[in-house]
Amino acid sequence: MATYKAPLRDIRFVLNEVLADSEPLPIDEEYGPETADAILEAAAQICEEVLQPLNRSGDEEGSVLENGVVRTPKGFKEAYEAFREGGWVGMPCAVEDGGQGMPRLLHNVVKEMFCSANLAFGMFPGLSNGAYAAIRAHAVDELKRAYLPKLATGEWTGTMCLTEPQCGTDLGLIRTKAVPKGDGSYAITGTKIFISCGDHDFTDNIVHLVLAKLPDAPEGVRGISLFLVPKRLPMADGKPGVHNGVSTCALEHKMGIKASPTCVLNFENSVGWLVGGAHKGMRCMFTMMNEARLSVGMQGLGLAEVAYQNARDYAKERTQGRSVSGTKDAAKSADPIIVHPDVRKNLLSIRSFTEGARVMAYWTGRLLDEAEKHPDAARREAADELVQLLTPVVKAYLTDQGFASTVTAQQVYGGHGYIREHGVEQFVRDARIAQIYEGTNGIQALDLVGRKLPQNMGRLLRRFFHPVDAFIQANSTDPKLVEFVMPTAKAFAKLQQATAQLAERGLKDPEEAVSGATDYLRLFGHVVMAFLWCRMVKLAQAKIAAGQDADGFYAAKVMTARFFTERVLPETDTLFRTVLAGRKTLMEMPAEAF
Amino acid sequence: MATYKAPLRDIRFVLNEVLADSEPLPIDEEYGPETADAILEAAAQICEEVLQPLNRSGDEEGSVLENGVVRTPKGFKEAYEAFREGGWVGMPCAVEDGGQGMPRLLHNVVKEMFCSANLAFGMFPGLSNGAYAAIRAHAVDELKRAYLPKLATGEWTGTMCLTEPQCGTDLGLIRTKAVPKGDGSYAITGTKIFISCGDHDFTDNIVHLVLAKLPDAPEGVRGISLFLVPKRLPMADGKPGVHNGVSTCALEHKMGIKASPTCVLNFENSVGWLVGGAHKGMRCMFTMMNEARLSVGMQGLGLAEVAYQNARDYAKERTQGRSVSGTKDAAKSADPIIVHPDVRKNLLSIRSFTEGARVMAYWTGRLLDEAEKHPDAARREAADELVQLLTPVVKAYLTDQGFASTVTAQQVYGGHGYIREHGVEQFVRDARIAQIYEGTNGIQALDLVGRKLPQNMGRLLRRFFHPVDAFIQANSTDPKLVEFVMPTAKAFAKLQQATAQLAERGLKDPEEAVSGATDYLRLFGHVVMAFLWCRMVKLAQAKIAAGQDADGFYAAKVMTARFFTERVLPETDTLFRTVLAGRKTLMEMPAEAF
Repeated sequence: MATYKAPLRDIRFVLNEVLADSEPLPIDEEYGPETADAILEAAAQICEEVLQPLNRSGDEEGSVLENGVVRTPKGFKEAYEAFREGGWVGMPCAVEDGGQGMPRLLHNVVKEMFCSANLAFGMFPGLSNGAYAAIRAHAVDELKRAYLPKLATGEWTGTMCLTEPQCGTDLGLIRTKAVPKGDGSYAITGTKIFISCGDHDFTDNIVHLVLAKLPDAPEGVRGISLFLVPKRLPMADGKPGVHNGVSTCALEHKMGIKASPTCVLNFENSVGWLVGGAHKGMRCMFTMMNEARLSVGMQGLGLAEVAYQNARDYAKERTQGRSVSGTKDAAKSADPIIVHPDVRKNLLSIRSFTEGARVMAYWTGRLLDEAEKHPDAARREAADELVQLLTPVVKAYLTDQGFASTVTAQQVYGGHGYIREHGVEQFVRDARIAQIYEGTNGIQALDLVGRKLPQNMGRLLRRFFHPVDAFIQANSTDPKLVEFVMPTAKAFAKLQQATAQLAERGLKDPEEAVSGATDYLRLFGHVVMAFLWCRMVKLAQAKIAAGQDADGFYAAKVMTARFFTERVLPETDTLFRTVLAGRKTLMEMPAEAF
Repeated sequence: MATYKAPLRDIRFVLNEVLADSEPLPIDEEYGPETADAILEAAAQICEEVLQPLNRSGDEEGSVLENGVVRTPKGFKEAYEAFREGGWVGMPCAVEDGGQGMPRLLHNVVKEMFCSANLAFGMFPGLSNGAYAAIRAHAVDELKRAYLPKLATGEWTGTMCLTEPQCGTDLGLIRTKAVPKGDGSYAITGTKIFISCGDHDFTDNIVHLVLAKLPDAPEGVRGISLFLVPKRLPMADGKPGVHNGVSTCALEHKMGIKASPTCVLNFENSVGWLVGGAHKGMRCMFTMMNEARLSVGMQGLGLAEVAYQNARDYAKERTQGRSVSGTKDAAKSADPIIVHPDVRKNLLSIRSFTEGARVMAYWTGRLLDEAEKHPDAARREAADELVQLLTPVVKAYLTDQGFASTVTAQQVYGGHGYIREHGVEQFVRDARIAQIYEGTNGIQALDLVGRKLPQNMGRLLRRFFHPVDAFIQANSTDPKLVEFVMPTAKAFAKLQQATAQLAERGLKDPEEAVSGATDYLRLFGHVVMAFLWCRMVKLAQAKIAAGQDADGFYAAKVMTARFFTERVLPETDTLFRTVLAGRKTLMEMPAEAF
C-alpha cells in the first residue's frame, strides 16, 4: 500500500528561504511563518489521515451511476464533509463570501498535498474554486450574492461545462443553445461531455458554468457565452429547490482518476443566467481555465512527490543483488537496491524534478498574490504578466515531467510496480490525465509560442528573461556556483537564440514557429528549473558555509542540483536543435501517406 | 473501438528488400517470398479476425481465479483452439516434434502481429516456445520425447517459474527446494510469483520449468537448477494423469495485460525432472530468457504499431481547429487534426520508431536463422554474437520507445484517449509491462555494458561496429544520402567515443561504467536505428530514381527517415554527455538523504 507524508521540511525551505526575497505584501503580516506552518500542518494531517487512505479504495471502487444518480466511493462523502468543515474548500475565497481569504501561495502548497494524497478527491474543490473565481470576476451582484457563499463554504460545488462531443479544443464549434426567456434568464439546451465532478453525492446542489450560444451569436469563439446553471434552482431561502433539467446520461470509464465522476451531462431547457455579457464567454472561461491550468500543473508535482516517497522507501527496503563497489550490508543476503546506480538515477530524476517544480509552482502562487495585492500597480502588472507567461509552462512542463516521474517510480519497483496493491501504478494512470485536460500540452505550447511570446512586443518574456540574466551576471564568477551557473547560462543563451529564431521565422511562416512549439516549451521549462536550482544552491551553500546543515538537508540540495545540471539540463542541447528543425520534417508528408 | 490491420506492405519491404542482402541460407528455398506471403496473410487474418476482437473484452473481463482454477476471458479458449489448429504455436518448433520448422525471421514477423492484435493472448504461445527451446537444448531424450511434441503442437503450454517473493532480479536468493526421490525424479517445494500463464483453461496440462535448489547446492546463482514440473503427471499413454501438487494461490491484479493470468504458484512435493544438469539452471534459464527478451522487444514494436494505426485514423477523422497555414477543408466546420504540426510530430515520432524497429527486430530474427542454419560455422558464430549483442538493445530500446509511442498515440486523441472505449489507454497499460519483465530495462543496460561489451575483448561489439563503419565509408559521399549518413556518422562517432570511455573508466571503477549504462543503451539503440534508416533510405531512393514509386511508399520512407534524423537522432548529443556524467552525480548522496 502506498503512503504519504507531506514534505513539510522542503515546503518550509521554499516558503521561508527561496521565496523570502519576493516583493513584500500587506498580507504577509497576517500569514507569517508560524501561521503558515499551523495551516500546513493541519493540511498535512487531513491529507495523510483522511484523503490518502481513500485513494486506492476510491480507484478500485470508482464513482458509479445508478438510476441517474452518481454515487462516489465509500468514505468520500464523509471526507468531503470533514474537508469542508475544515475550511479547505474556501482557502482562496474572500472572507466576505465565507472563504478564508488566504494567500494564493499557501493555497498552492496545500493543493500540492491534495494532489499527492488523493487526486480524484482534490478535483472537487479545485473545480469549485474555478467556478467561484469566474462568478466573482464576471457575474452580476445578484448572482454573486446567491452563489459565491455557497461555493466558498463548499456547501455546493462547481463545474466547468465546456466540451461537447464534436469539440474540445475548438470551442467555436459548440452547439449548446441559450434562448432568452424574457425574464433575464435563459433556457439552456445541449449535451456536454467530460464534465469532471458533474454530478455526485457530496452536496445537494451543483453550480454548472456552461458555455452556450445565444440565438444571434456570431460564428466561432466570438459567439460563445457563459451561463450559470444550477443543478437545482435555489428557493427564496437559498435552499436548493426543483431540479433544473440537468441530467447525467453516463459516466466515462477512464484510465485513472476513477473516483472522480466524469459525466456526460444533458441540459434540457435548464434555467441559466448570463455571466460576463453576451458573447463574452471565452474571456470568462479563461478566468476559470487559467486557474485550472496552474492547478493541473500542481497535479504533476503532487503525484511525482508521492511516487518518489514510495519508490524511495521501496528502494531502501527491498534487497536484491550486491553493490558493484562491494557488499554494503553483509548481514543480509543482498544489499538494498538503493546501492545500484540506476535505481538512484531513477530516484534523483524524480527528486530533481519535484524540488525544482515545487519552487516553480509556489513562486507562481506568490506572483498571483503580488498580482492581486501589491500596493503598486506596476508591480501588480509585472507579476500578472509573469504568471501569464509561466502558466502554460507550469501546466505542460510539470505534467509531462510529473507523468514521467510516476513511470520512473514504477520502474524502481520492478514487477511489483505493475501490481495494483503497491499503488504506484495508480499514480501513473492518474498522472496521465494531467497532460491532456484543460488544454493538452500541445495546446499549452501553442499558447506559449503563439500568444505569450509575441504579447506586448515580447514584454511578458522579458519579465522572465531579465531576472535570469541579472542572476547570471551577479553570480557567474562565484567559484562555488560556477558548476551550476555556467550550464544555466549556456542553456539560457540557447533559449534566447531559439526564441529569436522562432519569432523571426514565425513572421514569415507561422507554421515554422508552431512546428517547434512543444520542444520550445520543454526547453523553456528546463531553463526555469535551472534558474531556480541555481537560486536554491546559492542559499544552500550559504547555510553549509555557516555551519547550519546538521541534518544534511542543504548538502542534499546541492547534490540534487548537480544531478539536475549534469543529467537533466543537457537535454537543452537536443531541444535547441529540434525546436529549430522546422516545418519541413512535419509538414512535407501528404496526409494520405500517414 | 480500436482496430488493427497487419502492416503487410511495410513487412514485405523489410523482408524482401531491406534484408535481401542477408547471407543466403538453405531454408530460403523452402520459404521464398510467395510462401512467406501466404503465411503472413494467414497470420494477418487470424490476428485481425480472431485475436484483435478479443483484446478489449479480455482487458475488461480479465482472467479470474475461481475455486483454485483459472478462467480466461470469454472467447480466449476458442481462439486458442483455432490458433493451435492453425499451427501457430509450433512455428519455430522442429518438424520432427510436430512443429512447423519455420524460419525465426518469419516467426518474428508473426509475433509482431500477435502483440499488436492481443498482447495478453500472445504471451501464451510465447511462453510455450521458451519452454520448448529450453527442453530441446538441455533436457535428456526421455523428457524431450515426452514433452516437446506436446509443446510444439500447443496441446500443452509452458511457463517459466523463476521469481519468488524475495527475489526477481537476484535469482541467487531463491528458496524453492528440490529433493532427490531416488528414482531420478525430484520433489519440488516452494512458492513462485509473477508466473505468466501459470494456470488457465486452454489445455489440460501445463509444463512448468522451475528454478530450484538441490540440497547440496552452492550459494547464489551457481547453485540453481532447472526442473521440468508438469501440472499433471503424464500417464503411460501420454495423457495427463494425477495432479502434481501445483496449485494457484492467487492471481495478481495488474495495471494491464489483464487477460493474461499472472499466478502465484505453490509447489508442494511436486514431481520434477532435472533439465540441464545439477546447478546448471542459470544457463538453461538463459536459453528461455534470451528468447523471451527478444520477444518482449517485439511487444514494444507491436503495441506501437497498433497505437499508431488508431491514432492516425483518429487524426484523419477528427476535425478541430484550422490549419495555421489556412483552411484545408472549407466544406467542414473544422480541418482534420492531422493538419496541425504537433499532431504530425506525435504520429511521426511513433512511425519513425516502428518502421526502424521493425527492421531491427526482423534483422535479429534473420540473424537467429543464420546462427542456427548457416552452413559455415564462422558465419553461425558471427550471427550468434551479433544477436547476443543486440538482445538487450532490442528488449530495452524497443520497449522504452514502444511504451513512449503508446503514450504519444494517446495524446493525439486528447481527452478521448483517456476513455477506455477507444482502446488506446489499454495499449499504454499493456505496453508498460514490457519495460519491466524478463529483466527490467535497467538490467538490460547492465547486461550490455557489463557483459556484452567486454565479452571476447569487444568482439561482439565489432560485429556491429564494422558493418556500420563500412556502410558509412561506402555511402558518405552520395549527395542523396548525405543528409542521413552524416548525422549517423556523427552519432556513431559519439557511440564509439562513449564506448571507449566507459570501458576505460570501468576498468578503474566499475561503478563509473554502470552509472552510464541506461543512457548508453539508449544511445546504442539510436545508432542502430540511424544505421537501419540509412539503409532504408538508400533502397527507397533507388526505387524513386527508377520511377518505381507510384503509391509514394518510398517517398514516405525518405520523409520518415528525415524526421528520425532531424528530430530523434539529435538526442544522441545529450546522451553522449549523460553517459559520461559519471558516478558522482548518482553515488555521492548518502542513502539516508534520499
